[in-house]
Amino acid sequence: MTTPHGRVDTPAFMPVGTQGAVKGATRHDLESIGAQILLSNTYHLYLRPGDDLIARRGGLHRFIAWDKPILTDSGGYQVFSLSERRTIAEDGVRFKSHLDGSSHLLTPEKATDIQAQLGSDIAMVLDECLAHPATLDETRASMQRTLRWAARARARLLELRDRTIDGVTVTNAGQAQFGIVQGGVDSALREESAHQTVALGFEAYAIGGLSVGEPIEVMYDVVAATTPHLPADRPRYLMGTGTPEDLVESVARGIDLFDCVLPTRNARNGQLFTSEGRINIKNARYAEDDRPLDPACGCYTCRTHSRAYLRHLYMADEINAATLNTLHNLCFYLDTLRRIRDAIAFGRFERFRLAFHQRLSRQSGGPGHFEPPEFSLR
Amino acid sequence: MTTPHGRVDTPAFMPVGTQGAVKGATRHDLESIGAQILLSNTYHLYLRPGDDLIARRGGLHRFIAWDKPILTDSGGYQVFSLSERRTIAEDGVRFKSHLDGSSHLLTPEKATDIQAQLGSDIAMVLDECLAHPATLDETRASMQRTLRWAARARARLLELRDRTIDGVTVTNAGQAQFGIVQGGVDSALREESAHQTVALGFEAYAIGGLSVGEPIEVMYDVVAATTPHLPADRPRYLMGTGTPEDLVESVARGIDLFDCVLPTRNARNGQLFTSEGRINIKNARYAEDDRPLDPACGCYTCRTHSRAYLRHLYMADEINAATLNTLHNLCFYLDTLRRIRDAIAFGRFERFRLAFHQRLSRQSGGPGHFEPPEFSLR
Repeated sequence: MTTPHGRVDTPAFMPVGTQGAVKGATRHDLESIGAQILLSNTYHLYLRPGDDLIARRGGLHRFIAWDKPILTDSGGYQVFSLSERRTIAEDGVRFKSHLDGSSHLLTPEKATDIQAQLGSDIAMVLDECLAHPATLDETRASMQRTLRWAARARARLLELRDRTIDGVTVTNAGQAQFGIVQGGVDSALREESAHQTVALGFEAYAIGGLSVGEPIEVMYDVVAATTPHLPADRPRYLMGTGTPEDLVESVARGIDLFDCVLPTRNARNGQLFTSEGRINIKNARYAEDDRPLDPACGCYTCRTHSRAYLRHLYMADEINAATLNTLHNLCFYLDTLRRIRDAIAFGRFERFRLAFHQRLSRQSGGPGHFEPPEFSLR
Repeated sequence: MTTPHGRVDTPAFMPVGTQGAVKGATRHDLESIGAQILLSNTYHLYLRPGDDLIARRGGLHRFIAWDKPILTDSGGYQVFSLSERRTIAEDGVRFKSHLDGSSHLLTPEKATDIQAQLGSDIAMVLDECLAHPATLDETRASMQRTLRWAARARARLLELRDRTIDGVTVTNAGQAQFGIVQGGVDSALREESAHQTVALGFEAYAIGGLSVGEPIEVMYDVVAATTPHLPADRPRYLMGTGTPEDLVESVARGIDLFDCVLPTRNARNGQLFTSEGRINIKNARYAEDDRPLDPACGCYTCRTHSRAYLRHLYMADEINAATLNTLHNLCFYLDTLRRIRDAIAFGRFERFRLAFHQRLSRQSGGPGHFEPPEFSLR
């Protein structure tokens, strides 16, 4: 995938830099593990420090000093999550800031404008994020509104490419815009959404509205039912997913791009992904474990420190626990994607997929689960 | 100064790694700014993860993966700070852990044993830390107890060098032990304490009991009154001090070694030392300031990010605010010491000292103060 700020090898995982920073990882850290693209959140940057301020700095890349690709979401996901603080209408979503309670209106045009000012390489259209579960009628209505909003967002971006509107500063003339397929867990709605979204003519397409509480097999089925209806020559982005095994299974179903807070958030909670299984570093069994966190990992954390020290840092609530753990978990994710890309390049993806699951099923905690925290009577 | 883990150029500043980690700075960070020695706290490491556990790992250097010199304090300062939770007697100090309320007895021998197990390159004797202000009689009695404790601590270390006692593992056979001069703000008591401490025969000597609330000029006078009574061929360590100007003034009075939490703690509060003055990065004036934090600084933070971004990170409560600010403040301190050493080497220290104060007095906030936070009516 080629962007105004360079190439991204796909399938790719995007570390999440919510507020223009990956929590606990500096640019140097991200470079050291080979991150090629970041995701950042429009909702947060719009409220603080504001897209106007960032545009005056020359855009998000210059503001945060990251000259590789950036994808921004539309802000919709966060706004819809403010369940008590927002009202939805055809025009858009009115919401109250979680910071100061101030009232704002996010429309498809506004989400496009903000992202134009941020100057991300990939902007997302504003979509309606429906809570799960929903009835078929609710899902259809929501999917259709998302299509109407997508058309408005696309029209706005095309206008912005031609001329200045309302003082919006376009800080990245080559910004791409991705449409988002909705339709809940219904294959027919997903197919309809895919066809109509593609008809609007975006640079590429994402699958939204998954990883919201549905069973994992349902998510896999929806992905499998949707990707055949998206252009094969364009990256397909599965939003907000997931575990390493979700990534492998979604690549098998045609996905090229991922983002998820799991590696960074779990790192801060002491939950670490390793080639030998998932570790709760706070568990007492690591108190005198002098081995590296993951003997198969080449990140700074694993090259430098022992599990015993990492446990001590976590128990002592040291900032370094967050930074060292974050670096490792992100490295594990990016390494997993590198191995997937290699396997595909060598025509060995199905073998890789099988071996990946076989190893997972032998690991402590079982597939997909972190080892449980230990409890003691003392 | 030469230690079992290498050389330290003096005068030197020791970043504080309270719990075996400098808050917000990894080993890589510390190496990148040329840190040659760390200080770590015996009280904290004794309680968690425990000196026994660290000794089983091979000592503190191996546990925290730092192969350069380490100085440990005696634990006394923290214990005496637990004012409601400790009782002092001739044998030592009984205290309750701030973690779980458990009761412990810290004696001169115990403080020596713990540090022998930690295996720092420089151990400190347990001294009595008197609150300021104190009467002359209180100060004399405390100074004399510190001398009795120092004799016991020295005897214990000499014994440990010869034979195993009570299962204490000596993890650094070449560990040095520093005596501590007390005597409050009374020059005569300081002189007496210095002579009697030197008579006990430590590898080197520290000045304790300052930076505890006395006026700054009084501290300077006490330092000036004490250093002439300490051997010229041994490093002199001023404990727990101070601002950059305190360092310059103390070097002028014969001090070689410093530690202080000021650069790291202030960094986490957004208070930053720069060659252009002291900055409160949260102030609104930096919101659109695209300059580096300190144009004269070569640290990663200043090479990479703008004041505007650092302000955003601070306001957004991002972990990277703490790590990037900490790296810069420590770099500023270590650079100041480097410039002091260069000035001394070139026979230009008095010129450097004058220029240093002239520049400080022109800076925003005035000498010795951070610029005040800005307030607004909104």
